[in-house]
Amino acid sequence: MSQIKIVIAGPRGNMGKEAVKMVEKVTDFELLAVVDSRNNGKMVRDLEGLPPLEVPVYEQMEECLQKHQPDVLIDLTNPKFGRKHMEAAFKFGVSPVVGTTGFTDQDLLELDAIAKSQKIGAIIAPNFAIGAILMMKFAQTAAKYMPDVEIIERHHDRKLDAPSGTAIKTAQLISEVREKKNQGHPEEREELAGARGADYEGMKIHSVRQPGLVAHQEVVFGSVGQTLTIRHDSINRESFMPGIELAVRAVKNIESLVYGLEHLMD
Amino acid sequence: MSQIKIVIAGPRGNMGKEAVKMVEKVTDFELLAVVDSRNNGKMVRDLEGLPPLEVPVYEQMEECLQKHQPDVLIDLTNPKFGRKHMEAAFKFGVSPVVGTTGFTDQDLLELDAIAKSQKIGAIIAPNFAIGAILMMKFAQTAAKYMPDVEIIERHHDRKLDAPSGTAIKTAQLISEVREKKNQGHPEEREELAGARGADYEGMKIHSVRQPGLVAHQEVVFGSVGQTLTIRHDSINRESFMPGIELAVRAVKNIESLVYGLEHLMD
Amino acid sequence: MSQIKIVIAGPRGNMGKEAVKMVEKVTDFELLAVVDSRNNGKMVRDLEGLPPLEVPVYEQMEECLQKHQPDVLIDLTNPKFGRKHMEAAFKFGVSPVVGTTGFTDQDLLELDAIAKSQKIGAIIAPNFAIGAILMMKFAQTAAKYMPDVEIIERHHDRKLDAPSGTAIKTAQLISEVREKKNQGHPEEREELAGARGADYEGMKIHSVRQPGLVAHQEVVFGSVGQTLTIRHDSINRESFMPGIELAVRAVKNIESLVYGLEHLMD
Amino acid sequence: MSQIKIVIAGPRGNMGKEAVKMVEKVTDFELLAVVDSRNNGKMVRDLEGLPPLEVPVYEQMEECLQKHQPDVLIDLTNPKFGRKHMEAAFKFGVSPVVGTTGFTDQDLLELDAIAKSQKIGAIIAPNFAIGAILMMKFAQTAAKYMPDVEIIERHHDRKLDAPSGTAIKTAQLISEVREKKNQGHPEEREELAGARGADYEGMKIHSVRQPGLVAHQEVVFGSVGQTLTIRHDSINRESFMPGIELAVRAVKNIESLVYGLEHLMD
Repeated sequence: MSQIKIVIAGPRGNMGKEAVKMVEKVTDFELLAVVDSRNNGKMVRDLEGLPPLEVPVYEQMEECLQKHQPDVLIDLTNPKFGRKHMEAAFKFGVSPVVGTTGFTDQDLLELDAIAKSQKIGAIIAPNFAIGAILMMKFAQTAAKYMPDVEIIERHHDRKLDAPSGTAIKTAQLISEVREKKNQGHPEEREELAGARGADYEGMKIHSVRQPGLVAHQEVVFGSVGQTLTIRHDSINRESFMPGIELAVRAVKNIESLVYGLEHLMD
Repeated sequence: MSQIKIVIAGPRGNMGKEAVKMVEKVTDFELLAVVDSRNNGKMVRDLEGLPPLEVPVYEQMEECLQKHQPDVLIDLTNPKFGRKHMEAAFKFGVSPVVGTTGFTDQDLLELDAIAKSQKIGAIIAPNFAIGAILMMKFAQTAAKYMPDVEIIERHHDRKLDAPSGTAIKTAQLISEVREKKNQGHPEEREELAGARGADYEGMKIHSVRQPGLVAHQEVVFGSVGQTLTIRHDSINRESFMPGIELAVRAVKNIESLVYGLEHLMD
Repeated sequence: MSQIKIVIAGPRGNMGKEAVKMVEKVTDFELLAVVDSRNNGKMVRDLEGLPPLEVPVYEQMEECLQKHQPDVLIDLTNPKFGRKHMEAAFKFGVSPVVGTTGFTDQDLLELDAIAKSQKIGAIIAPNFAIGAILMMKFAQTAAKYMPDVEIIERHHDRKLDAPSGTAIKTAQLISEVREKKNQGHPEEREELAGARGADYEGMKIHSVRQPGLVAHQEVVFGSVGQTLTIRHDSINRESFMPGIELAVRAVKNIESLVYGLEHLMD
Repeated sequence: MSQIKIVIAGPRGNMGKEAVKMVEKVTDFELLAVVDSRNNGKMVRDLEGLPPLEVPVYEQMEECLQKHQPDVLIDLTNPKFGRKHMEAAFKFGVSPVVGTTGFTDQDLLELDAIAKSQKIGAIIAPNFAIGAILMMKFAQTAAKYMPDVEIIERHHDRKLDAPSGTAIKTAQLISEVREKKNQGHPEEREELAGARGADYEGMKIHSVRQPGLVAHQEVVFGSVGQTLTIRHDSINRESFMPGIELAVRAVKNIESLVYGLEHLMD
């Protein structure tokens, strides 16, 4: 089995740290170098919280890619650098796998055009948690057959916004396919305001916030005599690693930009 | 083992039907007669939906109790008859087990006084579901040690009120013991109104309504690194029968009025 | 909207009773007659437990179909009659929707050949619970990406066999796609025999049996940092009705035999 | 509010690290010193993975206690040191709160005798997770009223033993109070060996092992028409801190040895 050669950008962030460890563990992945906003010339072993690897750190993306010629660039930096790093990758024939968000539709169109013209695969994924992506796909399918759906999402109590972004994304995906309906009894009444949750096109969303929780969501479909529940529980950032691994393997087989891991899954 | 002799009032109601079947099944219970608002002189086997028993039907409570002298009267009629039936039971030395609600505090005081003066036990229980009562007791205890609590109750979508009576009762019991606190992040914000549910003294209550559900409630306690969940699922009225059986056995050992099955349980 | 004209065979069975009620409720469905092994010449209203309908009962399938010329025959009898009833339906140009099991592969091939030659649709479904079918489909897809899977199925304590047929069917479907692996720690040991459940090609299946349960199954997929759970809860036979309705609508648009409701769903 | 002065033994272990952080966070707790098997003369800030505190490290317990005279010693070392440390604490009038296991009955009797004679409180707790202790207490109570119980415990797939110690402890506690019965249908049969789980005096225990799990247990009670579920989910060692805090506060109000946190809770 030939090795897939990898550079990681953003190695000191939460996801970056996990990605360095993951690449080390996967037997046919090989970490050539990392790109960091500082620490030029140091080694990964010199960075706090990272494994003791003799892998060089660069501050300049182009210098790093030119010197090491990896197959794949895993970019876990931030929206500001995402596009610049992708363009550098394309320039050196490297396939980017990008976990930052904040791209405009125009960005995506332009990056896709470059990928296609150069026949280089690229993947941008706002969410690398495979389980969460499957939950959303399954929820969308189930809603065609069981249109009474409520979403209960649960997060730690330091979260500021409710409902969560994933809950709203799930409701959007469902609303694309489900027959319009207002759920619950037409004459139902809240004795205490808010009891029935938030309304999203007739669906209800409930947000639970407690210490001891991390990130959890269940989507419940009811029909006469039965319920179907699809639930995802995430307890740490390691949960994103199988998705990044999946993307690294898939990106070599495509010749355009794919936005969203769901398009790489059946 | 000596038999416990029983009369049931309200045999054609949903709970009455189940009670007739339960008394038939329990080996040391014996059904002597039933009291119905009509069908005087018929047999239980003549009533639709009831087992084929040669047990007589009376319209007059006093006539029935005088003739059969049961140990216990199980009354599953309605608030209008509840008090009258209890007074008739006391008159004939019969211990009443009553499942109707709507008694005033004054009713309870007066009925307790009669029970005590005659040394006859009596039980009135607004809820005979043992599992639901245990859930509420446990929730109250847990709240002393884990004050971050949210209630998620789920019912069929023909239910009109939200939150359910059981959810509000649970929140009341918890608020008697828990330290006051507003849960969630102080700066949390609802992007969609109602997402965080109903507020009851800083606790949150969420009401789910769907076909395929019957009556379900989970009480979730969160603390650093852990959650404790207490959940009750009820799928039909049979769920009330173990509680009625418990009350029938307990009522012979008391000499006053007990209101609420929880006072018969540890 | 034109009416879909229906005959039901097996109206006194548990599913037959629910089917009669369902056909009455769906506005564009019309019940023309029922076929029963007895009660020839009576009306549906004469049969115990059925709605008071002026719909005739036949003992002879051919006589009934010839006289009423329905669009669809819903057959909920038993394996003995299933094939005979399907052949009668084909003879009169009626599309059969069949809920009995026990067909041999040879039966299916022959029935499919007739359906195709006459361009008549036919559906045989061993399970009409849409939620259960979605659970199995989703489980099969998820297993490709999250190969660590355990099945926990829960049924009432009058059930004799463990694991349930649905659990074994789910494990079979998963094993068709998942990479082979023995789950759990290679050196794990049972301090009490059976703790780790039944083994199906390295997957574990656990069977819970308790009063208060009906038919429930959860399929749990674990991956680093996350779990995905797909759960189906069924509380009564009404849960099969949306699936029968789906099949009745779909059978008019096909010209062959479809075995399994899953092939009518995305 | 006066400060509770604390010394921690075993600061570099997993629980020790969390305990140092917890004592720092609780406003009326004050960390005077730590006792470690090495690092004499260093500061807590010099130890890897600990907060940057100017708190001295001692290798000799007696020297540390004599010099700092704390109110409470939190001992999170190992069974070998547990008894020795408790005796040192008693000698200097310090109340020990001990999280190590492995004490013999004779140890406990002797330590209790010393505690009583000197009127010093002491607490040994094999489990500091308040939620787990509540789960076990509630399970024991519920089993009196709902004797059909099954335990489903779920842990990460690096765990070697099944069932977990907590599951066996829960089953023991339940068996002390529940009426003896063999659950499930008398004629139930396993089509696949192990499906019905491990047997503990007629109760069933099921052990799930998957990546993505940490430590979870649900105890399910079934009765006609209803189920009651008590579930504990633990995701990290922080979950033990509220229990240690509870013990530190309680130990000052007792004058004997208490074994098990449950005896400090209602």
